[in-house]
Amino acid sequence: MNVTVRGKTRAYRTVTFDAAHNHVRLIEQRLLPHTFKIEASRNFRETAAAIRDMVVRGAGAIGATAAYGLAQGARAFRGSDQRKFSRQVETVYTTLKAARPTAVDPVNAMNAVRRAMGRGQSVAQQQTLALAAAEEFANEDVQHCAAIGRQGVKLIRNGMKVLTHCNAGWLAFVDFGTATAPLYAAQAAGKRFHVFCDETRPRSQGATLTAWELAQQGIAHQIIADNAAGHLMQAGEIDLVLVGSDRTLGRTGEVANKIGTYTKAVLAKRHGIPFYVAIPLSTIDWNLRRGREIPIEERPEDEVLGAWGVLQTQRTGAGVRNGKRAYLRVANPTSGARNPGFDVTPADLITGIITPAGIFKPRELWRHRRTLGFNP
Amino acid sequence: MNVTVRGKTRAYRTVTFDAAHNHVRLIEQRLLPHTFKIEASRNFRETAAAIRDMVVRGAGAIGATAAYGLAQGARAFRGSDQRKFSRQVETVYTTLKAARPTAVDPVNAMNAVRRAMGRGQSVAQQQTLALAAAEEFANEDVQHCAAIGRQGVKLIRNGMKVLTHCNAGWLAFVDFGTATAPLYAAQAAGKRFHVFCDETRPRSQGATLTAWELAQQGIAHQIIADNAAGHLMQAGEIDLVLVGSDRTLGRTGEVANKIGTYTKAVLAKRHGIPFYVAIPLSTIDWNLRRGREIPIEERPEDEVLGAWGVLQTQRTGAGVRNGKRAYLRVANPTSGARNPGFDVTPADLITGIITPAGIFKPRELWRHRRTLGFNP
Repeated sequence: MNVTVRGKTRAYRTVTFDAAHNHVRLIEQRLLPHTFKIEASRNFRETAAAIRDMVVRGAGAIGATAAYGLAQGARAFRGSDQRKFSRQVETVYTTLKAARPTAVDPVNAMNAVRRAMGRGQSVAQQQTLALAAAEEFANEDVQHCAAIGRQGVKLIRNGMKVLTHCNAGWLAFVDFGTATAPLYAAQAAGKRFHVFCDETRPRSQGATLTAWELAQQGIAHQIIADNAAGHLMQAGEIDLVLVGSDRTLGRTGEVANKIGTYTKAVLAKRHGIPFYVAIPLSTIDWNLRRGREIPIEERPEDEVLGAWGVLQTQRTGAGVRNGKRAYLRVANPTSGARNPGFDVTPADLITGIITPAGIFKPRELWRHRRTLGFNP
Repeated sequence: MNVTVRGKTRAYRTVTFDAAHNHVRLIEQRLLPHTFKIEASRNFRETAAAIRDMVVRGAGAIGATAAYGLAQGARAFRGSDQRKFSRQVETVYTTLKAARPTAVDPVNAMNAVRRAMGRGQSVAQQQTLALAAAEEFANEDVQHCAAIGRQGVKLIRNGMKVLTHCNAGWLAFVDFGTATAPLYAAQAAGKRFHVFCDETRPRSQGATLTAWELAQQGIAHQIIADNAAGHLMQAGEIDLVLVGSDRTLGRTGEVANKIGTYTKAVLAKRHGIPFYVAIPLSTIDWNLRRGREIPIEERPEDEVLGAWGVLQTQRTGAGVRNGKRAYLRVANPTSGARNPGFDVTPADLITGIITPAGIFKPRELWRHRRTLGFNP
């Protein structure tokens, strides 16, 4: 999507590959929204570190990064000794997998690359096939998100006010994003609408990443405290809620997503406001039988007890870009925190699940499982 | 309530009067929770500035401060000329009223002091009566909060987990607070319970003031992101919600309170969790006929776009007290915000209203209006 740097607007992807230099190129997301910078990982170890240290985050984005990282490691091999090459590829695979051990996308992505490599007869062929497969993985991610946009665009009517939570935007994928894809498609179709971005405490991905994306794209938006959506719904100022999902249960239609998503769904239900979840097929879990079996990660207390941002010596005006990055302790210094990272929204609160293959009622996913890629 | 300073625990009130020096003594709330300091206002202009600049905040606390400020200004008068004295008192009254022009408590408090002064025959008598009336106002505030505690304590059972939002604690009154009063009473009765403090973005009064109060009092508590309460309710970890109110409509039982209160009420309803609002009688509005007529203040965008706290060079450990105070910009620098300060919770979501005179269903307030101080 678009990013404007020093007055020049250009289209970017979150992850790309520089074949000439054998570099994985990533938007350095830890500096956003205050600084935009492309980071080049020069070898697979740097790429693994970028995944581990969250230079890049988001399901699709880390999947594509791992796929490129595997190709990068394979391409760095010099010579034609198949056994040595295979050992190198194994090391690369293990290193990249260990960078985010609980994530499923890097594994799926790298398995696709490895399968493709298996069709090569020589080291050189396998190196070529690895990169081609990584590119294909990244392009498919883009196509899936674009398809979500085409499916979801019909939900956005002129003059609508849309609430989002967290960031399921293009920064979390290779391009377009999931929850944001219908917005970008609606903008492309010339529709006018307004987006409220939930701040999304404690990590503030809505206030930082989603707001940055929408600002770069020129989409009208305002950030709100997570506390404010209920009042805006009472005031008739929200017409639609659009969120992403980390894991959706194919058997029940339950949706695990960033903490606070469930609250927005409960509010939307009370106000009769449509609540949609946009997902790529890869995040559907066809095995788990109950949402309560989803483990909810308890994250560090620091996130709740303070905030990250840039220091602002001058509190008004635009002179905030050049501030020094810092962590501020907000809370009482002798208090602790609870910090569940995710919650689970039951199917009865969800109007529809937007997938690349169509929009489904949450409880219809299982019936359409063949269409949706279930492969028992 | 208790505050421990350099290892010594002492009971404090939010506002007191030093008759010997004619000083109003206030807890400097802008430095909390990171620094505890008592500020002495040496004359009525300093007292007005303390109200205006929010050294002191909260309905009961600013009421008592204004009452003491009026007595302070009256007592500073030298001589016995009644006309000059009355002019001086008028100046003091106007100055203190202008410090928070929309607040109703300072006006009510100062009117009580003026009425008492009217019974004096000389300047000296009126000066004496002014201070006595101010003391009476402050003591009544304490008694009302203590009575709320006695009423509400029966709701707290051993082992309960209680959710609070914002700060309706003793810092907002002279002592005990409203939403916190049942907690303090339960502690005094030897009950064991755990409190979850909603952070209460954007101004974080739960993470700063309520958490500080509970920590000082030795009550077990944890701060949570405003997003987390829904998940904790799903997990069966919240048994009761206790909040305060800025304005409660006597005719409908609707409750205006800090933004986010309504959301917690909607969640509590879905989970069948009792939702109680603790109020002093002075905050009941007997005139307004509909909650939607309550004007909702739109507050500065800065509050949503960033955070205040102390800088922490070392992110772990306890070395956070001595950090420098700062404002951090968290959000995307080119985005704006909506910032409604309050919301209105309808009667159907409220289990009961805890008043000094008893606990009532919200729709019963009107029927009990004589008991509740309605004076048409």
